[in-house]
Amino acid sequence: MLRDRYPSKLLEDAVEAIGTLPGVGKRSAMRLALHLLRQPSENVHHLADALVHLRDDVKYCSTCMMISDDDTCSICADARRDHRTICVVETVRDVMSIEATGQYNGVYHVLGGSISPIDGIGPSDLTIGTLVSRVEALGDGEVILALGGDVEGETTAFYIYRQLSRFPVKLTTLARGLGFGDDLEYADEVTLGRSIAARQPFKP
Amino acid sequence: MLRDRYPSKLLEDAVEAIGTLPGVGKRSAMRLALHLLRQPSENVHHLADALVHLRDDVKYCSTCMMISDDDTCSICADARRDHRTICVVETVRDVMSIEATGQYNGVYHVLGGSISPIDGIGPSDLTIGTLVSRVEALGDGEVILALGGDVEGETTAFYIYRQLSRFPVKLTTLARGLGFGDDLEYADEVTLGRSIAARQPFKP
Repeated sequence: MLRDRYPSKLLEDAVEAIGTLPGVGKRSAMRLALHLLRQPSENVHHLADALVHLRDDVKYCSTCMMISDDDTCSICADARRDHRTICVVETVRDVMSIEATGQYNGVYHVLGGSISPIDGIGPSDLTIGTLVSRVEALGDGEVILALGGDVEGETTAFYIYRQLSRFPVKLTTLARGLGFGDDLEYADEVTLGRSIAARQPFKP
Repeated sequence: MLRDRYPSKLLEDAVEAIGTLPGVGKRSAMRLALHLLRQPSENVHHLADALVHLRDDVKYCSTCMMISDDDTCSICADARRDHRTICVVETVRDVMSIEATGQYNGVYHVLGGSISPIDGIGPSDLTIGTLVSRVEALGDGEVILALGGDVEGETTAFYIYRQLSRFPVKLTTLARGLGFGDDLEYADEVTLGRSIAARQPFKP
């Protein structure tokens, strides 16, 4: 039998490293490693360089904490956007999701996660202090709390609500309920139950 | 809207590079890129280095063409293995699959693929010349053609058969049929049909 079933220490190292990626099991890691072995060397260097450059050279917008190539991101730098509406999200990815809808013209604030005592993430690990300063300077604008619907998201929203309630800003949150166009038949019980409890005036 | 929907050129480059991996779509590539962004820099460097080292520094066994850290792989270097039985496979991965069974004690020959005119892969792109030299030196040993059951695998097996039939070596191939323990009910029609055509003497 092969030593540890790996014919090569280099292969083993690569499979271990690839296997640390989320959603990539040992089998997929092996498949990816053997794929890279068959690629031209410059392609593998290109991939490796792209990963290192992303990690080491990406900047964060000094205003909203969105990732950016400059000190101010393209959204905060855009004068056509409504800078009096701040949408507070957990992650960079949430900004991209909302941008992809094309329905939002305000600016963002990326918290960098949500309050999660079990993961050791407290309010001071998030960019809440910066958010408070922004809101303080904002006057009577609007802050949309677009956080996750899980316990962590709700905890974070409540914490931020308490920090911001002393300001004249309008606090809103995302509409939740059955998906638009969804049939009742396919909704899970929690969503359906909450949608009934949170029913809205009918507008014909 | 964000320029090209990417907040950063570095992120775009990383997502593009990760997206060239087989089985990794744009969405997974984005998820992986954002994951790497949250990791300690040294972890990302470790991953990038492991990929580059694998690609640039891995060696191939001069006898069987298996990947190896040395000029001779651990299987070819193992005197306890039966060097008079050569199992011919398409890929490095096939060697690892057979090794994982623990049922084989011979040595290997990795072709590096299979003959596929549609992909521009001819016999000269594979290590068939080296195999012929090995078999010539082997005398009356055994060569197991453990190639794929697809058209390319069968073409390759037939080509090798013609190259080797002038030697006194015994040529064998893997048993094919219903999986051991499989019920007829769940077999696909081709497998079942071929298993009937290739029926074997009953050994009680």
